[in-house]
Formats: sequence, C-alpha cells, structure tokens
Amino acid sequence: MAFGWIDERAASRYRAGLARTLRPRRADCPLLDLASNDYLGLARHPEVTEGAVRAARTWGGGATGSRLVTGTTTLHTDLERELAGFCGFEAALVLSSGYAANLAAVTALAPHGALIVSDAGNHASLIDGCRLARGAKQVVAHADPDAVRKALAAHGGTAVVVSDAVFSVDGDAAPLPGLAAACRERGAGLILDDAHGLGVLGDGGRGSAYAAGLADAEDVVVTVTLSKSLGSQGGAVLGPARVIDHLVNTARTFMFDTGLAPAAAGAALAALQLLRREPERAARARSVAGRLYTELTTAGLDAVRPDAAVVSVRAPSPEGAVRWAADCRAAGLSVGCFRPPSVPDGISRLRLTARADLSGEQVDRAVRLIGETRP
Amino acid sequence: MAFGWIDERAASRYRAGLARTLRPRRADCPLLDLASNDYLGLARHPEVTEGAVRAARTWGGGATGSRLVTGTTTLHTDLERELAGFCGFEAALVLSSGYAANLAAVTALAPHGALIVSDAGNHASLIDGCRLARGAKQVVAHADPDAVRKALAAHGGTAVVVSDAVFSVDGDAAPLPGLAAACRERGAGLILDDAHGLGVLGDGGRGSAYAAGLADAEDVVVTVTLSKSLGSQGGAVLGPARVIDHLVNTARTFMFDTGLAPAAAGAALAALQLLRREPERAARARSVAGRLYTELTTAGLDAVRPDAAVVSVRAPSPEGAVRWAADCRAAGLSVGCFRPPSVPDGISRLRLTARADLSGEQVDRAVRLIGETRP
Ligand SMILES: Cc1ncc(COP(=O)(O)O)c(C=O)c1O
Ligand SMILES: Cc1ncc(COP(=O)(O)O)c(C=O)c1O
Repeated sequence: MAFGWIDERAASRYRAGLARTLRPRRADCPLLDLASNDYLGLARHPEVTEGAVRAARTWGGGATGSRLVTGTTTLHTDLERELAGFCGFEAALVLSSGYAANLAAVTALAPHGALIVSDAGNHASLIDGCRLARGAKQVVAHADPDAVRKALAAHGGTAVVVSDAVFSVDGDAAPLPGLAAACRERGAGLILDDAHGLGVLGDGGRGSAYAAGLADAEDVVVTVTLSKSLGSQGGAVLGPARVIDHLVNTARTFMFDTGLAPAAAGAALAALQLLRREPERAARARSVAGRLYTELTTAGLDAVRPDAAVVSVRAPSPEGAVRWAADCRAAGLSVGCFRPPSVPDGISRLRLTARADLSGEQVDRAVRLIGETRP
Repeated sequence: MAFGWIDERAASRYRAGLARTLRPRRADCPLLDLASNDYLGLARHPEVTEGAVRAARTWGGGATGSRLVTGTTTLHTDLERELAGFCGFEAALVLSSGYAANLAAVTALAPHGALIVSDAGNHASLIDGCRLARGAKQVVAHADPDAVRKALAAHGGTAVVVSDAVFSVDGDAAPLPGLAAACRERGAGLILDDAHGLGVLGDGGRGSAYAAGLADAEDVVVTVTLSKSLGSQGGAVLGPARVIDHLVNTARTFMFDTGLAPAAAGAALAALQLLRREPERAARARSVAGRLYTELTTAGLDAVRPDAAVVSVRAPSPEGAVRWAADCRAAGLSVGCFRPPSVPDGISRLRLTARADLSGEQVDRAVRLIGETRP
C-alpha cells in the first residue's frame, strides 16, 4: 500500500518517546509564555497589529504573485529600505519566511564549484540551503574559527562560510570576529543567520553583524526573520546591492514564491518603527535573559549562559523533557521542549525565551515552577 | 574579492536579455490586471481583508513560534478543518507558503531508498523538494502516464509520483486518471500540486483531485497554496490523517518554521467561506479564461488552450517578451512575462491570468492591447 511504510515509522517514534502532536492554543491562553520567540513582546502590540490591519485594508489579503510579477508593492520596498537602514546594510530583500530567506541566500551565493563551510549547529533552514546549493559542503565543528580556516585553506576557490549568528537551540553567539577574520584571509564570503539576534543584540537591537562591525561589509550577507523580535512573519536578506540584485535574479525561493502578505510586511514595518522609538526594548530582553539564567543556575538547574534571549536548560532524556514541559504547562507555564531530531547533539532540553515585557516577578515565578517540576 | 564573481553573472544576464528588476506597484495601480494569480478576485474583497484584520487583532501579528511550540492557534486548526472538508480530504496541514508545503510533502514522503518520479514541467518548489528528498529522482516526459509507468516498473520498491495538477507556465492540466492508474498498478503514492486548481477546477472550486475523484484516496496527497485563488499567503498539504501526522513529525519546513501569520490564516479562511457561499466564482474564472483564449486565437496569437485560469501566449524571444509586456503596461495592461530560467522548455511567453471578476469588456480590451503591441 502506498504510504504504508509510514505506520512503522510512527510506531518507532512512539516507542522512542519522540512522537510530536500539535497543541492548539486559544487567543486568551492563560499560560505564562516562555516559549515564543516574541522577544520584544511586540506580536500583540497594538501598533504592530494595526500595522497589519492598515496593510491588509490598503493592499489586500495577499501579494497576488511572485515579487517579480505583481508581488512587489511599495510597502515591500518601504520595509526593505527600513530594514537595511536599521541594520546598517546597503540593501535588503524581503521573502515569505526566514526559512525561504536562508534557502535563497545559501543557494544563490554558493554556485557550482564553490565550497560551503557550515557550522555543525546551524539551523535546519541553513542546512537545507546547503543541501540545495550546487557547491560542495563541508560541516565544521561548532563555533570554531580554526576549523573554518582549515576547511577554507584546503579548498582555494570561491567559498562561503555559513553560520547562525545566535544558535537557535542553546542561544549561544557565533564567534563573529574570528569567523570574519578566517573568511578574509581567504577572500571567502560570510553568510550569517541573525534570526535570534535582530531586535536583541547590537545598539537598540540592530543585530549581531552591526554589533560586530560587520554591517555593510562587501563580503558579509545577513539573513533575518520578521517572525521573532518583529512579531510578524517573513524573512529578509541584507547585504550589498549587487548581492541583492543577484538574489532577485537567481534565488528560486524568491523568484518562484508569492510575495510576503501585505499584513505581515505592515506588521514588521510597524514593529521596526516602534523599535527605533523604543530602543531600550533590546537591552531589556537581554537583561531578562540574564536574570532568568542566574536564577535557574542558582536553583541548581543546568542552564546555558545566554548571549541573546534564548536560555536552554538540559533535561535528562526526551521523555523527561516532554514530562517536564507538560508539568510546567499544568502549573501555568509554557516552555519549549527540544528533542531529537531538533537538537544537533541529541541532548533534549527545555528551551526558554526571555521577553522584554516579562516582569521580574514573572521570571521568579517561571524559575520556581521549572524547579518544582524538575524530573 | 568575496562575491566578486557575481558581477560577471550580472553582465552575462544583461547581454542575454535575461536581467530582472523589481517594479514596485502602488495600492491604486491603474493597470488592468491580467498578471496576478488572484483568480477569483478575492485578494481585495472586503470579507477577505476583514478576515485578516480580525485575525491580526485577535491573535497578533505573528504566530510567535514553530507550529510545534507556540505557533498552532485554534485559527490554524479551524482553517485546516475547513480546507480538508472543502477539498474532500481527511486532514490538512497549513504551512507558511505553498513553496514550504511542497518541500514538506516531497521530502517527508520520499525517504531514503524510495524512487521519486517527477514531471519535467513541475514547479520549482516541487523540483527543490525532489532535490532535498533522500530518495532517488527520475524526471519523466511532461504529462505522460506511460513514462511514469515505465519509471515505476524499473524500480520496484517504495515510490512516489510528483506532478503539478495544473502546470504554472502553460496552464495545462496533468492527466490525473492516467497518473493515478499508473501509480496504483505499482502501489506508488501520488503527490499533486494543485496551486492553480484550487478555487478554479472541480465543483465550486474544490480542486483537481476532487474533480478527478481522487480526493480522500489513501494513496493521494495534494498540496495547495493560499496565495492564489484564496487571495492570501500560505500553503497546505491535504491527505490521509496518518500522512499529515507523519508530516508533523518529519517535515523540516513545518517543524523548523514559524507558523503562518494569523492574518494570512484569517484571510484564507474568509475566502474559503466566501467561495462556499458563491461557488459560481470558480466556473466564472474558467469561462473568462475560455473567452480570453478564443479571442487571442481569433486575433492570430499563439495561445495555449487553458485547462484552468492561466492562458499562455508564445513570444518570439526573451527580449521580445520583455518588450511586449512593457508595451502592454504602457498601454494600461499588466501581463506576466516568463523567460528562461522560469520556463522549462526555454520558450518565452506572456502569461495571462483570467479572473472571475473580469468583465467581457475588459477581456476584449486586454486582447486588443495584446494584439496591438505584438512584436
Ligand atoms: C536560526 C533560525 N533561522 C531561521 C529560522 C526560520 O525563520 P522563519 O520561522 O521566520 O521562517 C528560524 C526559526 O524558525 C531560526 O531559529
Ligand atoms: C505550481 C505552483 N506550486 C507552488 C507555488 C508556490 O506557492 P506559494 O507562492 O504560495 O509559496 C506556486 C507559485 O508560487 C506554483 O505556481
């Protein structure tokens, strides 16, 4: 029977404690949220939702076509100008998701014959970008500029280094100065995925590349998502205008995909304008993360020191992580639960996110509940 | 210099007449639109845009996380139930784009050791799905069940056949009964991309699989997009509940991607409800396409008989197609212009789309302008 093999996979997933199910949430969900990537607390901010409302009423429910046919509105180009300006880059290109932005950047910038050097901890979308790209792939040790240097030295030709700027599972930052130096010794390009850095790191949330003095460099390309700090949906590639023009002409997830919905573009633009006006939100997200980490560690939990707003706590096993997260939920707290295959090292964890709008009292309560439900 | 190789590519694209640039459109664009994929004229329908508005205000600007963490709202599950019910399938899974839905379906349903048989005219997103999947790939002649039969016979093990149900460039329909028969002889699964069939084909727009009696078959999976007939953004996979559960657990563009923005889900849901109430929109889109084709042919233009709402007209060359589309635009008409690499056979064309809300007079005017600007 076609698709009959699926049942066996489902059974073995179940036996291994790795089955996943969807848990729909209501609009008035009463849980304390330490699971979403809404780092600045903007997803439900009235300015952001009214940005979506205005855009939907002005432009319609969808972009109606590929950005190259009918799907580029002046709203899209306004958003691109604002994003590029805010993050310090020459140009930007908005796509329908951060996932699509990563596929676009890696495939378009690693042509046949090129070498792609990819960090072992990279996000699934960068990995898929590497797999789709025509270049040769080499995976190197996590956060290790020397490993990158060695891989580049062994190649010689066109090369590109690909890394999360802030890793999504443990929330640790990539060693950007070391990576940039390794790239420059060999004339390699550097692609950084700043999904978890935009809005959190750098002056007023301008992101990891800005903070490292790498914005607007001719050899650095950054991808961002509009779905985390900016509380919306979509992704973007930031870089030199010639790189952006190259993407417009060659990136399949740009050319053959309907443009980002106007409401999403409008929400992200409103969030960006709000962040310019309230730059302290970025520092606040970082300080909440720091407090969360300190309190967890004080409570004897095995947490990773956060470089941005993600705080990861190790769990004893996949089943242990699932039970822990379920017990937190039963006690009123929503936390992320990461298990294989979502963790590169096979270690299950709770994944907590700090939000700029969490109070000290809420952080205290979260830590207390996590401690009390510890398996 | 890193990315220095890009300039040479740009120059050769320019020399070949294949350079693309973005043309932003204003909200009050006065052109007659025969370029968008808004087949039912719903993208700017007030019920659809108010669906987006309500959803953004109720749920926020974004889904805030992966569908598996925080990104599944009851709005998403309502939309999934409606989509599955409308198209006649047991279950549905909504993703952030049609592109992501195709990547998800093909990669999750063609594991290591499986054979993927793919039509030569398939959309870029299906092709990328084939390239990302672990299975072996075989591309077969366009719309040719016997070629599919031969490919399946040569393999033996788990196999899946992948095809656009309506091809995006020429608007021709795949031979669904023949494909289904070829699959069933060998126990192969069938994945159909109905991006251009939903809302246009089948009773009241229920899509190609419904029309062919293939909805709710245990060996058929259909992908759709919310960005064309439904005037929004997003994509979905429709199929047996066990297949959908398998996607939830294994499809990377589902697991590692932020959920579809509430506004997009709300707009699509409103469009679906409207289409249930006004099923005649589907037939109207088809009859407009038929009139467009007849008039173009009568005017001596080389058009392809449409099976849905896309009408393609051959152009003499890439430059000729670009000039033709520009001349149409100057005369007040927006048409699509497809050139390599967006056309599998290398033939450039104008790509026209019929919309349910085009009047006879508008079709006449469009045909007159296309004829007058013919290169
Ligand atoms: C590091 C990283 N990159 C890219 C993405 C994809 O972005 P999006 O969800 O907006 O498609 C995510 C999360 O989803 C991520 O964590
Ligand atoms: C046949 C086909 N499949 C899939 C897609 C992708 O859908 P979306 O643009 O909603 O991502 C498109 C068009 O964009 C298409 O034409």
